[in-house]
Amino acid sequence: MTILLYDLVGADAARPFSPHCWKAAMALAHKGLAFERVATPFTEVPKIEDGATKIVPLIRDGERLVADSFEIALYLDEAYPDRPTLFGGDGGKAMARFVERWSQVTLHGYIGGALLMDIHDRLGEADQAYFRQSREGRFGKPLEEMPEGREEKLAGFHARLEPLRNMLSVQPFIGGERPLFCDYIVFGAFQWARVISPFRILADGDPVTDWFERCLSLHEGMARQVPAAA
Amino acid sequence: MTILLYDLVGADAARPFSPHCWKAAMALAHKGLAFERVATPFTEVPKIEDGATKIVPLIRDGERLVADSFEIALYLDEAYPDRPTLFGGDGGKAMARFVERWSQVTLHGYIGGALLMDIHDRLGEADQAYFRQSREGRFGKPLEEMPEGREEKLAGFHARLEPLRNMLSVQPFIGGERPLFCDYIVFGAFQWARVISPFRILADGDPVTDWFERCLSLHEGMARQVPAAA
Repeated sequence: MTILLYDLVGADAARPFSPHCWKAAMALAHKGLAFERVATPFTEVPKIEDGATKIVPLIRDGERLVADSFEIALYLDEAYPDRPTLFGGDGGKAMARFVERWSQVTLHGYIGGALLMDIHDRLGEADQAYFRQSREGRFGKPLEEMPEGREEKLAGFHARLEPLRNMLSVQPFIGGERPLFCDYIVFGAFQWARVISPFRILADGDPVTDWFERCLSLHEGMARQVPAAA
Repeated sequence: MTILLYDLVGADAARPFSPHCWKAAMALAHKGLAFERVATPFTEVPKIEDGATKIVPLIRDGERLVADSFEIALYLDEAYPDRPTLFGGDGGKAMARFVERWSQVTLHGYIGGALLMDIHDRLGEADQAYFRQSREGRFGKPLEEMPEGREEKLAGFHARLEPLRNMLSVQPFIGGERPLFCDYIVFGAFQWARVISPFRILADGDPVTDWFERCLSLHEGMARQVPAAA
């Protein structure tokens, strides 16, 4: 049976943009599982599956509902052990948590601020009102002020990618010779930026950009099929 | 047969301080292997094992010589597969490279500058001359200038520990419920600071400090047996 992936979208239902939903989509593709993306605006999330979740991604696999990208990856590896592993063992499961927190602190911190208005502008009308209220409450200032200085801060952002860049001189993926869920964790953040904003956060010639391009080509170029925002 | 670990020391042969040698020592202890630490000053490194290495750690295990802490950990897991794993699978081997580069960029960058004179001052006389020449060549300024502003930069250093700190809310070690080599990679940097300088780089109450204390207690408190620098 086809797995359902409830997937965050804005006004364009064909442009899923949530970094966490992209992690789950890549994990499903990695396992070679058939899945269908259910386009879900922010304000529809509480209504899906009879209010089963406050967050997406949420997957339905037969009778089973699983929310949260990391939980989904753990579930898929446990439920489908004969398909390609997402973690490469217990050590990989644990260390993927470190990659997750590094990505959250280092990438989401910058991207979430720099592209906040781009996200807002690509949401449907009801979602825009929700988004403004929730984010202005979280950040304590008008949405419009969040991206200020994003050009000036870009060099610092690039510098903070150095652990990833440096590691890529040893191996082509964070998971080693082949990608694992840890790659999709980091990929999700850059894909979020790619599909939601024309502001380019990765530089030509950066090994991180080359790695990102390799990820876009995975699974028959699934993630590249959503064009970059123009 | 007892494994030999050639281990960097300064004037005090009972105070090994190299972060990389501490990684190897913890890896050997993790595997439950008997080993002897061979105190080796900087200027003696080229002379050990008939010039077999330019770097320490170097181990001799019977006929086998292995240099570089990561290579040593890989070797030990391969040579002693029945003893506790250092990586927890292939995914862990790959992701430990990311932890290594994060540690190198984030921790060694600050510590190597902030504690440079402390390191110098605890070396033997011949090593002091070598150290000054090589480090002043590398950094392009007098040794004495490197630690400048270390107090002011400490808050920024603590902020950059956030991925580790945040992850420790999920699990007690980077390796999960138990430590793996990835923990020893990061531990080595903090132990380097602990044994070479009275300047405290970790704050009381920080979850990172609690994790470091847990590491000091591992393997019958092996690493704590070298007292903190006073």
